[in-house]
Amino acid sequence: MAGNSFGTLFKLTTFGESHGKAIGGIIEGCSAGLELDFDAIQKEMNRRKPGQSDIVTQRKEPDSVEFLSGVFEGKTTGTPIGFLINNTNQKSKDYSHIKDVYRPSHADYTYQKKYGIRDYRGGGRSSARETACRVVAGAIAKQLMPNVQINAYTSSVGDLFLEKPYQDLDFSKIDTNPVRCPDESIAEQMIAKIKAIRKEGDTIGGTITCVLQNVPVGLGEPVFDKLHAELGKAMLSINAVKGFEYGSGFCGARMKGSEHNDLFNNDGSTKTNLSGGIQGGISNGMDIYFRVAFKPVATIIQNQEALDSSGTIVEMQGKGRHDPCVVPRAVPIVEAMAALVLADFYLMNKMYT
Amino acid sequence: MAGNSFGTLFKLTTFGESHGKAIGGIIEGCSAGLELDFDAIQKEMNRRKPGQSDIVTQRKEPDSVEFLSGVFEGKTTGTPIGFLINNTNQKSKDYSHIKDVYRPSHADYTYQKKYGIRDYRGGGRSSARETACRVVAGAIAKQLMPNVQINAYTSSVGDLFLEKPYQDLDFSKIDTNPVRCPDESIAEQMIAKIKAIRKEGDTIGGTITCVLQNVPVGLGEPVFDKLHAELGKAMLSINAVKGFEYGSGFCGARMKGSEHNDLFNNDGSTKTNLSGGIQGGISNGMDIYFRVAFKPVATIIQNQEALDSSGTIVEMQGKGRHDPCVVPRAVPIVEAMAALVLADFYLMNKMYT
Amino acid sequence: MAGNSFGTLFKLTTFGESHGKAIGGIIEGCSAGLELDFDAIQKEMNRRKPGQSDIVTQRKEPDSVEFLSGVFEGKTTGTPIGFLINNTNQKSKDYSHIKDVYRPSHADYTYQKKYGIRDYRGGGRSSARETACRVVAGAIAKQLMPNVQINAYTSSVGDLFLEKPYQDLDFSKIDTNPVRCPDESIAEQMIAKIKAIRKEGDTIGGTITCVLQNVPVGLGEPVFDKLHAELGKAMLSINAVKGFEYGSGFCGARMKGSEHNDLFNNDGSTKTNLSGGIQGGISNGMDIYFRVAFKPVATIIQNQEALDSSGTIVEMQGKGRHDPCVVPRAVPIVEAMAALVLADFYLMNKMYT
Amino acid sequence: MAGNSFGTLFKLTTFGESHGKAIGGIIEGCSAGLELDFDAIQKEMNRRKPGQSDIVTQRKEPDSVEFLSGVFEGKTTGTPIGFLINNTNQKSKDYSHIKDVYRPSHADYTYQKKYGIRDYRGGGRSSARETACRVVAGAIAKQLMPNVQINAYTSSVGDLFLEKPYQDLDFSKIDTNPVRCPDESIAEQMIAKIKAIRKEGDTIGGTITCVLQNVPVGLGEPVFDKLHAELGKAMLSINAVKGFEYGSGFCGARMKGSEHNDLFNNDGSTKTNLSGGIQGGISNGMDIYFRVAFKPVATIIQNQEALDSSGTIVEMQGKGRHDPCVVPRAVPIVEAMAALVLADFYLMNKMYT
Repeated sequence: MAGNSFGTLFKLTTFGESHGKAIGGIIEGCSAGLELDFDAIQKEMNRRKPGQSDIVTQRKEPDSVEFLSGVFEGKTTGTPIGFLINNTNQKSKDYSHIKDVYRPSHADYTYQKKYGIRDYRGGGRSSARETACRVVAGAIAKQLMPNVQINAYTSSVGDLFLEKPYQDLDFSKIDTNPVRCPDESIAEQMIAKIKAIRKEGDTIGGTITCVLQNVPVGLGEPVFDKLHAELGKAMLSINAVKGFEYGSGFCGARMKGSEHNDLFNNDGSTKTNLSGGIQGGISNGMDIYFRVAFKPVATIIQNQEALDSSGTIVEMQGKGRHDPCVVPRAVPIVEAMAALVLADFYLMNKMYT
Repeated sequence: MAGNSFGTLFKLTTFGESHGKAIGGIIEGCSAGLELDFDAIQKEMNRRKPGQSDIVTQRKEPDSVEFLSGVFEGKTTGTPIGFLINNTNQKSKDYSHIKDVYRPSHADYTYQKKYGIRDYRGGGRSSARETACRVVAGAIAKQLMPNVQINAYTSSVGDLFLEKPYQDLDFSKIDTNPVRCPDESIAEQMIAKIKAIRKEGDTIGGTITCVLQNVPVGLGEPVFDKLHAELGKAMLSINAVKGFEYGSGFCGARMKGSEHNDLFNNDGSTKTNLSGGIQGGISNGMDIYFRVAFKPVATIIQNQEALDSSGTIVEMQGKGRHDPCVVPRAVPIVEAMAALVLADFYLMNKMYT
Repeated sequence: MAGNSFGTLFKLTTFGESHGKAIGGIIEGCSAGLELDFDAIQKEMNRRKPGQSDIVTQRKEPDSVEFLSGVFEGKTTGTPIGFLINNTNQKSKDYSHIKDVYRPSHADYTYQKKYGIRDYRGGGRSSARETACRVVAGAIAKQLMPNVQINAYTSSVGDLFLEKPYQDLDFSKIDTNPVRCPDESIAEQMIAKIKAIRKEGDTIGGTITCVLQNVPVGLGEPVFDKLHAELGKAMLSINAVKGFEYGSGFCGARMKGSEHNDLFNNDGSTKTNLSGGIQGGISNGMDIYFRVAFKPVATIIQNQEALDSSGTIVEMQGKGRHDPCVVPRAVPIVEAMAALVLADFYLMNKMYT
Repeated sequence: MAGNSFGTLFKLTTFGESHGKAIGGIIEGCSAGLELDFDAIQKEMNRRKPGQSDIVTQRKEPDSVEFLSGVFEGKTTGTPIGFLINNTNQKSKDYSHIKDVYRPSHADYTYQKKYGIRDYRGGGRSSARETACRVVAGAIAKQLMPNVQINAYTSSVGDLFLEKPYQDLDFSKIDTNPVRCPDESIAEQMIAKIKAIRKEGDTIGGTITCVLQNVPVGLGEPVFDKLHAELGKAMLSINAVKGFEYGSGFCGARMKGSEHNDLFNNDGSTKTNLSGGIQGGISNGMDIYFRVAFKPVATIIQNQEALDSSGTIVEMQGKGRHDPCVVPRAVPIVEAMAALVLADFYLMNKMYT
C-alpha cells in the first residue's frame, strides 16, 4: 500500500535504507517443498553487486543474503521467507555534505517535501541499493518456474545500439563481458564508451532488452492487470527507468493494421510476433519481449548547482563512487522484476484450474 | 485481484462485455460532499463515444451513464458510486461468424485458452467498450482535484508527428478537430491520413501525449508504487497500448548526466524538466508529461487468415464498423486513467498530513 | 479498501443504499465454465427477502436479481459478474421525519460525523438491505463448491435456546418453519415469542448456529488470515451482530487442556471436535461450526428519545415496517458469508497445488 | 494475501518460525517524524516474553528488538520499519520426538496436509512466538495515537470470573500482579488456580477484556470493514482464541430493543453503552470494549495419544516448558492487535478530511 510490496500471490515486501544496518525483505507465496538453489541466488546477487568490474561503481559490498525463515532443511515450507542483506560499506560520513542540500535530479527534494524528514545518507530509501532485495526474490521466482527462460541484456549505451533482433543473439554470451551485451563487438564499443564517460566524470543512459521464453499460455489478468501492464509497472519501478515498450512498441504506432497483425499457424503460434507474446493482456505462448530505457545516473563528478534547504543555490562538487552507466548492473534487476511478475501470474492462473 | 479494479483508495471496479445488457462499475473512495457536475461527466463520455465524427467507428451508442448510488441530492455521500451504461447497439448477430474463429492479433485465442470459454460477441470483455467505465470514473476523479489540469492530445498518427513541445501548444484547441491534435495544420493532415487508411480498409497506429499540471508536490509512493510506474501501468492497461515513456523517455537513454540533470531554481522548481515532474517516484511540482504508443486496430476490412478452433487456417473477411485509428477516441481515456492515478495518490498522501 | 469489498480471489464488491434506484455488486474470481443455477440463487434471495412470513417485516420487495455480465449462454466466463437488484419499495417519504434526527443505536449519528452528509432515507448505506447482495454472491459461491454443505439455523431467540447439539438436528427441517429452527417444538415457542414481542412494539435478539461440512482439509491462511478469523470478520460484518464463537467458543475458556484436546483417529479425524474443525487457522476436515449473536433491532414501535442535529433531545415515535427479530432472515445471510469465506480460501488453496 | 500481513495503511507483515534464526517484520505506514520511545516498545515486549513470572512458561528469551530501517536519528522517516527478534533459546533437539507425530489440537496435522512439509520444531510458524512481532508493531501503533488509551486485562481463568464492570476497575493495577487482573483478590485466586493446574501438568483457558478509550468518532469502514469486524478478526487471529464479543455481546442476543437501545445525551454521547462504542461499524466516541475467549493450551505434561505420519496412534509424553494458562501473556498481544486496528482506521479516516 505504501509502495513497499510487489505482487499479490507471489509477493515481495522490502525495507531498508542504503546506509542503515541492513536491507531485507519478506517473500510470500513461494510454493512449499521447493528445494532452493542458494548458489543460483547468490550468483544473481553477484551480477548486481557493486565493484564487480571496472565499468561500474568501485564500492565494495559482498551483498550476501541471509535467510531467516521459510526454509527448512533446504526446502521452502510455504511460510514467508524473511531475508537480510547487511550494509557493510556504509561510510556515512561521505554524505554529511548533502545533509541540507537537494542534489539535482535526485529524490532528495521530493522525499523531504513528502515526509518532512529524510535519511540523507546515500539516498536512503531512494537509493538503488534496495534493488538487491528484488534480485533475491526474483532469483527464487525463477526457481519456481524452471521451464521459463528469462534473458535480459544491454541493447544500447548512449547512441551505441545493438541493432540485431534478439533471435540472432546468443544469450549465453551475455555474461561474458562486463557490459552484458551478447554481441562481442558492440560490447567492446560500449565498454570503451562507458570508460570514456567515466573519465569525464560524467554518466550515460542506455536501454535493456528482455526476452521471456516458454511462458505458458494464459498468464495475465484482464482488464487492468494485463500482463504487459504489470511488466511495465515492474520495470518503471526500477530506479532511473524512463520508458517501457513491448512487442512492436513505439514503432508499432507507425504501422498499419495489415502490416502489424500476427497471422496464426495451425498450432496457435503466430508467423510474426509484433504483439510481443501477449494478446488482450494474456500471454499467448510466443516469446514476450520488451525494452526498458534508463536515464543517465544523476550523480556526476563535476561541479553542479544544487539547492539547499534555505532556498539558496549552492555549488556542489560531485564525489563518491558511482556508476558511470547503470545499465550493466540493471540487467539482473530487469530479469528479477520480470520473474516476479510471471511468478505472480503463474500462481494466480492456478485459480482457473 | 482478478484484474477488474484500478486504484487502492480511489478505486474503480468494472464489469461488462461489449454485447451484454450493460457495462458498469463501482467507484470507491470519492470524498463525501462533492457536488458532482454530471454534464462534465457526460461531456467526457461524448469525447469517447463511437460515431462522434467521420474518422471513428460509425457505430452509434449514446453511452449515457446512470448513477445508482453514492450520490444524494447531487452530492457524493462517501459511499460507493455504482453506475451503469446500457449497451444499446449490440447487434450480436454480427459476430456469429467468429464464434469458432480466433482473429489475428485479437484476444479471442488467449481468452479461450485461459478460461476455456468466451463471450465471442464483439470481443466480449476484451473489447475497448469497457473503457467507457474508465471515463466515468476519471471524470469524477478530475472533479476531486479541481486545480489539477489534465490535457492529452494526439501527437502522432502513423508517420505524421506533431513535433512541437507541449509548451508551444494551445490545449484549448484539442477538441476543435476530430483527431484531437491542437495544431490545426497537422490535425488536417492526420485527418486526411486516417480517411485514406479507412478507404483502404486498413488501420493505423499513433501516439498520445499527456500533460499533468498543478499536481501537488509529494504524490507517489516509493519503492514499487512510484507515480510514473502507476501511470505506466494505467496507460499500458488501455487496449492497444504498446509503449509508455515519461519525461525524457527513450531519448533520455541516449543522454549524458551532465545534459540530463534538471538544475534547481530558488523556489524548488527546476530550469529544465527532463525528469518529467517526478523524482524518485514522487511528484516534484513541475509538469508531468508522458507519451503513449497505440498499435493499429487489429480489425481490418480486408481478407485475412484466421485460426479456427479445430486448428484450421481459414479465410476471414473483415467487416463491421471499426475505428481506422484508435487514437482520437483514446484521448479522453488517457486523461481518465491519469486522473485515476492522481486521485488515488492524492488521497493516499493525506495519510502523511 | 473503503470497506465495500469482501474476499481476495473470490471477491464481492457492493454498492447501494436502501432507497436509491438499485443496489448491486460485482463478483470476481468465479471460475469459468460454471453452469449457474439461477433458481437456486433466487431461492436464497427469497429466504432473505422482506414480507416472507408474519414474523418478519411486512415490507414487500421481490428482490429479483438481474445479471448483467460474466455469464454467457448460462455459464460463467471467468469475467466479473455484475448484478442489480432494484429497489421497488422505496417510499422515501416515510423517512422525512428522521432527516435531522439521529435515532438511538442506529448508524445515523456516526455516518453523519464521519462523512458530514448522509442519505437518511431508511438507513441509506447502513441499512441491512445491502445484505441482499451478499446472498447473491454467497449463492454463487455455494455452487462453486458443490460438495461443501453449509447449514445455518436459529439457535436462540431471547431466552429461548435450542439446546440440542447440531448432530442431533435434521437440517432439512430448517426451512419448514418461518423462524428457521430445525426443532419444531422450540420453533413454535420462538414464533410465539416473536409475535408477542411484535405486539409490544418491541424487538428481540437471538443467535444463529452455522455448520460447514465436507470442507476440504487445508483451507485458511496463517498467521493473520486464519479461517476462523475470516469467518469471524464475515459474521461481525453483518448488521446487528455482537459476537462470534467457534468450536468450544466461550465455554472452551473454562476448560482444561486435558478435557479440551481432540484426540485423533487413525484416519486423521478426531474423536471429539471442540476445536471446531480448525487447527492453527487451517481446516482439518472435521465439521466447522460457529455461533453468531444478534442484538435486538434498534427500531421499535414505541416512543423513544432521539437526538437532533442541533443537539436537542426530541421525542420520536417509531413507525414503519420493521423486523421484530432479525434472526430468521439472517440465516441465509450467515450462510452466504460463510460461503464467501470458504470460496475465497478454496481458490487460494489452489496456489499450493 | 498469504496471511502474513495485517492492516492496509498501517500494515504489519511478519515472518519467522519459533526455532529459526530469528523472527521479524516490516511495519508500513507509520507517519514520518514520530519520535519513537524505544523503552516503551521493549516494555511491551517484556510483558509478553516467556519466563517473566512463575505462572508462565519458564523458557528464557530476552526478546529484544533490533530496528533495521525506517528510523533516522530517533525519528520515523515514513519508510518501512524493518525489525528483528533473534531466537536465542531454540533447543531444537527438544522437538525431534514430534518430527513424525501430530499432536492433538495443535496445527501439526493441518500444516502438514496443507503444505506437504512443515518445520516441526516447536510449532514452527504456528507457534505463538510470532505474536512477539505483533507486540512490536502494536507498541508503535500506540505511539501514533497518544491520546487513545488501550487497556486489556484478564477477566477470567477457568471458572474464576472478574464480575465487576470495567468502569469499577483501576487499570493501573493490571500489571501489579503476574496474572494481569486489576482486582487483587480475584488475581490471587487466579494465580493459585494456575499454579494448581500447572502442578497437575494440565492447562486452563480464560478470557481477556479490552477497553479502548478516547477513540475519535468516525473510525471504521462500512460495509465489510466495520470497526468491530476488524477487531474481531484481529483477536481471532491470535493463537488459541475461540470467541469474540463486543458491547453487549452474547448477552445482547437475549435482550429486547427497548432495553438495549442507548439513548443520547445532548452532546452525542449516550446514557448507556450496550453498543460498545460502535454504530454501523463506525466508532461513536464512547468507550469500545470487547471480550476474547482463549482455549486451554494444547500442550499438557501428561500422557496423551497422538497420531503419527503412518496413521498409527502413539502414546506421547508431553514435556517442555509451556504456559499453564496463556491469558496473562496474551494481555499485551490483545492490546497490540487492538492498536493495529485503530491505527489503520485512524490513517484511513484521514482520507475523508
